[in-house]
Amino acid sequence: MTQKYEIIVIGAGPAGLSAGMFIARQKASCLIISKDLGGQMNLIPKLENYPGTILSSGPLLAKTLENQYLAYGGELSYDIVEKIDFENNFKITTTRSDYIAKTIVLAPGKVPNNLGLENEAKFANKGGVHYCTKCDAPFYQGKITASVGVGAYLLESGILLSRMASKVYLIFKGGRLGGDKDMIASLEQKQNVELISNSTIKSISGSNTVNEVTITNSSEKETTFSIDGLFIEMGSKINLDYVKHLVKLNPKGEIEISRGGSTSHPAIFAAGDATSIPYKQIAVACGNGTEAGLSAFNYVEKLNGKPGIRADWKKKIGDTVFHY
Amino acid sequence: MTQKYEIIVIGAGPAGLSAGMFIARQKASCLIISKDLGGQMNLIPKLENYPGTILSSGPLLAKTLENQYLAYGGELSYDIVEKIDFENNFKITTTRSDYIAKTIVLAPGKVPNNLGLENEAKFANKGGVHYCTKCDAPFYQGKITASVGVGAYLLESGILLSRMASKVYLIFKGGRLGGDKDMIASLEQKQNVELISNSTIKSISGSNTVNEVTITNSSEKETTFSIDGLFIEMGSKINLDYVKHLVKLNPKGEIEISRGGSTSHPAIFAAGDATSIPYKQIAVACGNGTEAGLSAFNYVEKLNGKPGIRADWKKKIGDTVFHY
Repeated sequence: MTQKYEIIVIGAGPAGLSAGMFIARQKASCLIISKDLGGQMNLIPKLENYPGTILSSGPLLAKTLENQYLAYGGELSYDIVEKIDFENNFKITTTRSDYIAKTIVLAPGKVPNNLGLENEAKFANKGGVHYCTKCDAPFYQGKITASVGVGAYLLESGILLSRMASKVYLIFKGGRLGGDKDMIASLEQKQNVELISNSTIKSISGSNTVNEVTITNSSEKETTFSIDGLFIEMGSKINLDYVKHLVKLNPKGEIEISRGGSTSHPAIFAAGDATSIPYKQIAVACGNGTEAGLSAFNYVEKLNGKPGIRADWKKKIGDTVFHY
Repeated sequence: MTQKYEIIVIGAGPAGLSAGMFIARQKASCLIISKDLGGQMNLIPKLENYPGTILSSGPLLAKTLENQYLAYGGELSYDIVEKIDFENNFKITTTRSDYIAKTIVLAPGKVPNNLGLENEAKFANKGGVHYCTKCDAPFYQGKITASVGVGAYLLESGILLSRMASKVYLIFKGGRLGGDKDMIASLEQKQNVELISNSTIKSISGSNTVNEVTITNSSEKETTFSIDGLFIEMGSKINLDYVKHLVKLNPKGEIEISRGGSTSHPAIFAAGDATSIPYKQIAVACGNGTEAGLSAFNYVEKLNGKPGIRADWKKKIGDTVFHY
């Protein structure tokens, strides 16, 4: 069944949730579609630079934003957008459903980088290939895991898994681990952690779930290990394949936005890390999300023949311009 | 004595405090100059649409932002900017001091409208002419006050003063009060409130403090009342007289900003309600303040021959672009 909303927001990170909050607060029907809550915010255990919150964390701020959004009557669906078409209205196809909307706000943020291996998509998540150690490490109590990745993400992956798994292979390209010295020292002391330097993953295999990983080292030598799970921590990237035919991207693959979160498409607004904003900060994402949400609401109001909310919240009474 | 800072921020509302927070966090020397803390935020007793805070208020959020800023080592001076000159560096003249800075962030927000009366500036604040009833009503316990103004501000002024003052004159241009019906009904029942419709203030007088107000009604008849204090609640406006020779304003008198809070002057950045942003929201002010603060910091870093902080927080390790 195709469900209809006035406005659909893609992404439930700080930008998408802020947009949704300002839309739902105006009593427009709003759905947020997102693969998760919080997006990259979930990687921030101690959040100290968000204006207005002290002693917070990324996941806690995400939960608060969700509460604010839901309290205004907004809806949220955990799903993945596969395709967006436009012909008078937007038709949004997800892995589970179809939706119709008058306007959309794109706030998808970034998604984890993959390795581009054969079988990788097949094994992703339930098949034992994971992109968020923090999320999925607890499934590997007493099991054999491998982590591949870069910088602090790889170190953190190794430390988290070393507390659960019986064996942890840390696979990396360079001659030595890079990053925080204390974290590296901690990893080097763990009995169950084995560092595999100068190496890249050549292939993974298994039937329903991954059970072998083959690496190549710098002298082209191949080695195969048995594993129960593989954690890929290669940072993240922007994925806009499902919408790039509708909206202009810049050379970095980011959505070009201008004032109020406008894009090259009159009915598409955007905010957050997947846009051309120079600073990728939560405060900026919330601010731009607010703008994009209000712009989307005004777009729908104008479609309905209404004047839209006052763009700059001021009113003239007699001779006096009254700001509020 | 002229004090030197790398960056000076004008204004301690949400935009200025967010800018200051991101500057001070980078260990640049930063001073915020503002006539008050919070600016227009102080008019919001119940704040429900700031992303990430629940059960908050404008003054509480202002205090939290101030705490965050001061915790990073930023400095704050309550003062009024009178003049800004630029010649290699900025020279900022305030009512109490002089400052030198390499770059400035303008986040002055809006200031209350005045009546433009002779003597008004002389009596302002300590002389019994006030622009914030909520701030100053408590000084008028058992005294005679008059309020002049528009809309909800006037109603609120009357209600607050009626709880303290022995007599409250409410002076307004129209034939009747406008706004919330319950508030109007409440005012009409108060024994100590007298409504003066179809009237404007012609003059005020007194020696050190105001003690008489003369009004003109629609038939040009003049009446003079004895008062102890006058509250002016005419909304607010942007005042950029001290900097308009340096930076381009739009026809509304707002500072034209583009990406990252840039203005027409390469060393001036801006954010908040005094800029050309379409939506005057706290979340937007915080987001834009963050951008302007980071841009100002990068400007100083480049002056010092340093590369500046990564504009989009990403790093290349080997072949992998690592976002964080």
